[in-house]
Order: sequence, then C-alpha cells, then structure tokens
Amino acid sequence: MNNALNFEPNTADNRDYPGLFIVFEGGDGSGKSTQVKLLAEALKNTHPDIVVTREPGGTDIGEKLRSLVLEHGHGEVDAHTEALIFAASRAALAHQLIQPTLERGGIVLCDRYIDSSAAYQGAGRQLGIENVVNLSLWATENLTPDLTILLDIPLDAGRARTDARGAADRMESEPDTFHTVLHQTFSTLAAQNPERYAVIDGTGSIAEVHAQVLSAVHTKLQEQE
Amino acid sequence: MNNALNFEPNTADNRDYPGLFIVFEGGDGSGKSTQVKLLAEALKNTHPDIVVTREPGGTDIGEKLRSLVLEHGHGEVDAHTEALIFAASRAALAHQLIQPTLERGGIVLCDRYIDSSAAYQGAGRQLGIENVVNLSLWATENLTPDLTILLDIPLDAGRARTDARGAADRMESEPDTFHTVLHQTFSTLAAQNPERYAVIDGTGSIAEVHAQVLSAVHTKLQEQE
Repeated sequence: MNNALNFEPNTADNRDYPGLFIVFEGGDGSGKSTQVKLLAEALKNTHPDIVVTREPGGTDIGEKLRSLVLEHGHGEVDAHTEALIFAASRAALAHQLIQPTLERGGIVLCDRYIDSSAAYQGAGRQLGIENVVNLSLWATENLTPDLTILLDIPLDAGRARTDARGAADRMESEPDTFHTVLHQTFSTLAAQNPERYAVIDGTGSIAEVHAQVLSAVHTKLQEQE
Repeated sequence: MNNALNFEPNTADNRDYPGLFIVFEGGDGSGKSTQVKLLAEALKNTHPDIVVTREPGGTDIGEKLRSLVLEHGHGEVDAHTEALIFAASRAALAHQLIQPTLERGGIVLCDRYIDSSAAYQGAGRQLGIENVVNLSLWATENLTPDLTILLDIPLDAGRARTDARGAADRMESEPDTFHTVLHQTFSTLAAQNPERYAVIDGTGSIAEVHAQVLSAVHTKLQEQE
C-alpha cells in the first residue's frame, strides 16, 4: 500500500470501568456463535447484566451496514470501502452498546471485533494490519477487549461447517488462500498479545470447547476481583 | 477528543493523470448542484468525457451508504460512525469512478468531497479537522481535487433555500450554530489552500455565479495545458 494510517496511542486509561469485555475470534465455521450462546447461558445466574452482540451489527445502523458489507449484490466493494464499513459498524457498537454496558459493570460477549478486521481487511485484503487496527482504535476511542478467545480449527474443518450452512456470505465466499492468511494472522495476533488472548482448540466437541472457554473466563474474572 | 488519527504524507505523485478533478463545496443551499449541472453543460462540447457525481453516493454501495447517513430513521448515528460512513462512500467513489476517469483524461465534477467532511464531521461534530482529513486521504489513497470551488453565501440565505426545498436531511436539520461552524471552516480551508480554492460569491444570480465558476475552471484548464 502506498499510504499509512497512523495512530497516536492514547495516554488516558480506557480500562476505567467495572465491566468485562470478552471477544470471540476465529475463522468462519470455528463455532464462535455457538460458544457465545453457551457462555452467556453459563454466566447469567452469577452475572445477570450480560450483553451478547456481534460484528458487524449489534445496533440499528450497524445491522444495516452488516447487510451492505456481507450480502452479495450491493455493487463493487473495494478493500478500503469494506474496511471503513466494518469500522463504522464497530464505532456504533462501541459507543452505543459496549462502552455503556462496561461502565455500569456488565459483561459484554461479542462475536468478532477489531482483530477480525486486522485479519480480514488488514492481512486478507492487504490494507496493512497496523492501518486497520489504528482505524478501529480511532473508531472505538480505544475500546479494546479484556479477553479475546480464539477458537482455533483447521481450515478444512471450518470450510466443511460453512459449506454445511448453505449460502456463503461475501467473506465466506473468498478462496482458501484468503482463509489461510486469516488463520495465520489470528495465530500471530494471539502470540503477540498473550495477556488478553486465550487460544482454544475448536476441534473438540461443543461441550469440550465450552469447558475450556469457561475456564478461561473464570480465570479472567478472578484476575479482576 | 482523546485520540488522534495521523497520516503519513504519501511521497508518490498522485497527480500523475491527464484528467481534471473539480469539487464544489459550500453549505447547504449554496447552489452547488445547480452550478455543477450548468458547468457540465458548458464544458461538454469541448470536453466530452465529463463525469458528474456527488457525495455521499455516486456508486451503488455509496448511494446505499448515503441513505443510511442522510435519512432520518436508521437509529442513533454517533459522530465517529457518521464520519466513517462518509469515508466509506468516498473510498468507493474515488476508486470506482474518480480515479479511472482522471486516468483516461476525463473531467470529474463532484458535489462535495473531503473538505465537506472536514467541515461537518471534523469541525461541526468536533472530531478534529486533521483526523477527518487523514481518514479521507487514507480512504481515497490521497486522491485530492485540482480545483475546489467554494460557493460562499450567508447562513440565512442558505437556510432560506433549504427551507424552501421542504424536508431537511440529517445534516440540514442541524441548528444554525452548527452551520455557522461549517461556514467558518470552509472559509479557513480556502484561505489555507489558495492554490486549489476558488471562492465565489454565491449570492448573485445563477448566471452571474455560473460566469465566475466558468472563469475559474478556464484558468485551471489553461494552467494544465
């Protein structure tokens, strides 16, 4: 790319809230939405203020942006436009739902967040991981997760699950080479950010994966106490 | 604002095309769309490859983004989300329409561009002019106008014209204090960029304003020869 989008790190403490922000990341078909639901169910007795959301989407304007960027048939969507639509949806979600929930002490479970853009648009679309992360940090005013759970499954296992679902969206329709880059990028981001990443083998049974997710979340909740 | 979006200037020459990129800027009701049409009509005999477009919009995805950001009723749209939707529409327009037209030697007439975001979101929504300009330079890969025509009219004259049109969009619905900030910002941008700005008194008759627009464009075309 011939230009860069740079971000000056914020010196303010953006973790000044009592809540907990948990993000699920991973390739298509890695089981994120299933595990988000199970985790919400498991936590709701002890933590009734729990908000489950997803990206792109999660707000009125965000769900409309989701349709534009994921569905086929809205005309050509170049890489920069795609990255900016994801960032717009993320800005709305962070300001309208995530930040207010964390400020009142709630738990947010979000299916995808900034690192998905790092993988899909930064690496997959070759806009540059740093550019795309900087864009999202600006969009969200530096609202980053306390815990990122990466559900790690081999590429062919993810592809088998998305194929079984039927009609693929714009991202799922990308070729295997694209999804290989995503997988590598998530692994790199996890290795670079061990303090907030929990990498979980997503090939086990739903119950096995859930048990590992719960263990990672309980560890983080204990750290916060 | 507690964070900044910085842009490293591109050292590549982005003016390496034979076309001419003309943008009309100004407050709501300043007569931009009327003057764009008259200018296209005046130029079409000598310059048959002339493309007229507008922001937000001008592409399939851009027109859908335009509806989301200008129409009422799509839920809460915070300042960051708004700026990112405008930037997404601009990225699509620059990549799909403006850049290709300029590369083949055509003339682009665009109703609003980056400086409108500088005024509306940077100053009006207080996101910072530099942040919003940097965002658009990244979105467009530094595609900036050769000539920006600012149609300058007093605030009350613009308001009278938009009121006469009927239903106001989300931007037009902002109070006079907001539109005063826009007017000041356009004047400042024009003063800071005299090499590309032509400031034209928009209070004259349509024919009078058109004559001044034509004069500014002919001067720029002669410079290019």
